[in-house]
Amino acid sequence: MKLKEMPREALQQFYVEAKAEYDACKAKGLKLDMSRGKPEKQQLDLSNALFSLPAPDSYVSGGIDARNYGTMDGLPACRALFAELLGVKPEEVFAAGSSSLTLMYGLISKAFTHGLLHSTAPWSKLGKVKFLCPVPGYDRHFTICQSFGVEMLNVPMTADGPDMDLVEEYVKDPAVKGIWCVPKYSNPEGIIYSDETIARLASLKPAAEDFVIMWDNAYCVHEFSGEFVPFKEILTECRNAGNPDMVFEFASTSKITLPGAGVACFACSEANMAYMKKLLNAECISFDKVNQLRHVQFLKDRAGVLAHMKKHAAFMKPKFDTVIEFLDREIEPLGFASYHRPTGGYFVSLNTMEGCAKRTHQLMKEAGVIMTGAGATYPYGKDPQDANLRIAPSYPPIAELREAMHVLCVCLKLAAAEKLLG
Amino acid sequence: MKLKEMPREALQQFYVEAKAEYDACKAKGLKLDMSRGKPEKQQLDLSNALFSLPAPDSYVSGGIDARNYGTMDGLPACRALFAELLGVKPEEVFAAGSSSLTLMYGLISKAFTHGLLHSTAPWSKLGKVKFLCPVPGYDRHFTICQSFGVEMLNVPMTADGPDMDLVEEYVKDPAVKGIWCVPKYSNPEGIIYSDETIARLASLKPAAEDFVIMWDNAYCVHEFSGEFVPFKEILTECRNAGNPDMVFEFASTSKITLPGAGVACFACSEANMAYMKKLLNAECISFDKVNQLRHVQFLKDRAGVLAHMKKHAAFMKPKFDTVIEFLDREIEPLGFASYHRPTGGYFVSLNTMEGCAKRTHQLMKEAGVIMTGAGATYPYGKDPQDANLRIAPSYPPIAELREAMHVLCVCLKLAAAEKLLG
Repeated sequence: MKLKEMPREALQQFYVEAKAEYDACKAKGLKLDMSRGKPEKQQLDLSNALFSLPAPDSYVSGGIDARNYGTMDGLPACRALFAELLGVKPEEVFAAGSSSLTLMYGLISKAFTHGLLHSTAPWSKLGKVKFLCPVPGYDRHFTICQSFGVEMLNVPMTADGPDMDLVEEYVKDPAVKGIWCVPKYSNPEGIIYSDETIARLASLKPAAEDFVIMWDNAYCVHEFSGEFVPFKEILTECRNAGNPDMVFEFASTSKITLPGAGVACFACSEANMAYMKKLLNAECISFDKVNQLRHVQFLKDRAGVLAHMKKHAAFMKPKFDTVIEFLDREIEPLGFASYHRPTGGYFVSLNTMEGCAKRTHQLMKEAGVIMTGAGATYPYGKDPQDANLRIAPSYPPIAELREAMHVLCVCLKLAAAEKLLG
Repeated sequence: MKLKEMPREALQQFYVEAKAEYDACKAKGLKLDMSRGKPEKQQLDLSNALFSLPAPDSYVSGGIDARNYGTMDGLPACRALFAELLGVKPEEVFAAGSSSLTLMYGLISKAFTHGLLHSTAPWSKLGKVKFLCPVPGYDRHFTICQSFGVEMLNVPMTADGPDMDLVEEYVKDPAVKGIWCVPKYSNPEGIIYSDETIARLASLKPAAEDFVIMWDNAYCVHEFSGEFVPFKEILTECRNAGNPDMVFEFASTSKITLPGAGVACFACSEANMAYMKKLLNAECISFDKVNQLRHVQFLKDRAGVLAHMKKHAAFMKPKFDTVIEFLDREIEPLGFASYHRPTGGYFVSLNTMEGCAKRTHQLMKEAGVIMTGAGATYPYGKDPQDANLRIAPSYPPIAELREAMHVLCVCLKLAAAEKLLG
């Protein structure tokens, strides 16, 4: 029976049972962490072969000794690997250090201090800078905006990606300088942008001449269920739409090999590349080419990456199945919450009853289960419906995850019942 | 006989001989590179043991799995290693990625976008920002300033470090926001700042409340001749002088292990650290802790680092001896040039006859020997005397270095003779 249709008496009984279950959970003194998209230890072990690479006497790649200074834009073999993964040309790839987030921050920072290729002024000289933020979205994108005082405008996600009618309307404002996109297995919903959404994004005619699509392709090969899903190549889409310089794409091996110790890259038009290299020349002599070489020797090529991702999937799928199993059994019949059923990425996005996310999060915390903060998936940490919760099931082992999901379901029920009882 | 005292006829004869020698050099069709402070291949080989680290099943350090996200300020063991090297507390060290230059750029960039701890406004909001640049100095420091439109003021180096009378005068201007320092084996002269210079720097009373000493301790353990030379610990000096937050120190293992693939750090007061962590939290989830762990396992501790540097010295000393041998034999008796005799670092700084550095560089280039550009050791590439040349002997093997030094001496003579003949 749907919770909202329950007669008050039944609801009271429901509450009492949920409360008892909750107290039982609490009594266990749990300490579980379901807060971040971190792979578990066994997934890390999949990449331990990195620690005997580069192989002896294989330090020179394409005529370049990876161990010395130089070649700021990255080892050609590493650029080629990312190019193959992303479907772009090697010249369009800049292979850098270990963090794509740092590259994104760097781009926004340079927009403020120097301006982008088509800027008429550095953004620090402008009165107001706004960014479009599809919601729910990735908290760290929002943190970058907040750090630079960028005003964030919520754009609701649909099953096809951001609400493009709204995006097209917003970009008429010249203060709107960009949009954050996680086009494949969006964080947190696991949505894949439709071809039409991508075409409309690439064809935008923003009032700002330096509008930038921040294309965070963090999960481009991160299927945990089924075969690799091809994706539209955004640089080509933008070029064909007459907007060759409107997009920067970001990717990394953080969730292919090791979080924070992989290789990150950006891809962009050759005009943007030339502009960025000029700026980056003041910042860096060269990035860690040894780690780039190590990754090339380990992953080899696209086929190697996809084969490696199958090994991750073997750990990830049972966890996501567990999450969905609990939600389907415990929550779905009650009709007060909705959730996506992703086939890739790192998260499940759950919308509980309006006004209940914070309370649910608090109940979980008090029962010893850490989740991503309620509201974190929205700019400024403010979820207008106070409904969204991000479930990150990758880190805990299955047994712990089952405990955590049990607690989550109990807390969802308890918070909803409290709300309805008023 | 001193060149300047030579009778015109003898000088003409000197010129003819130098020209003939130069033509003979040119005829060899050389291709030599003496441009950057890069270690040679055999020095890189000294660190190849890194490529089988971290050791199997040793990925957890201080309770932290180096392979996963987290611990933004760096692996405690790595912070402790740098703390021991620099003589500071581990809490004062932030262990980051592979480039200290990137950390320096990042600090200046954040000063512009956010301001430093004691800034009343981000520097981007100020009319003018000036920086003190001891000259000759490191071109990449100057490039950072130039990139941000910072006006650079030359401060001549003395045998004890920057001319402190001038520095103390300049800092009365509130637009003067900082100074670049390479306190040990300065780039390019190889000068070690005297204790008095360091004490005066730490005791500065700048008009700018957010004045920053950029303490680039790039060569802190980089003796190639003789034993380790202790250095004054600048954080303590500043704290004792009542300026605890006035300095950021930078270091890296780029010239201990691998250039561009080592580990870099900054050290600063705990108040600065708290401020920087808040800002860096928007930029990064965590730096490459695997490479940090790899370095800790390889270098172990200060004693391990110093022992390792002795191996570098075995390659470096003969090269610096070669440079000095040529200069002492070919140039010193002619009396038109002066040079330092460093015992550490990566460079020899040569001052030739005024107005001759560019011409010497051009002659060398035409003879197939690449040197650091004349003027590069000064802000904006403008050496007011057109006299300074930076010799970087580390990269070429000895046989090539001898050829390059021969060409350099010939070119120095030829350019000087041309100049005197008018």
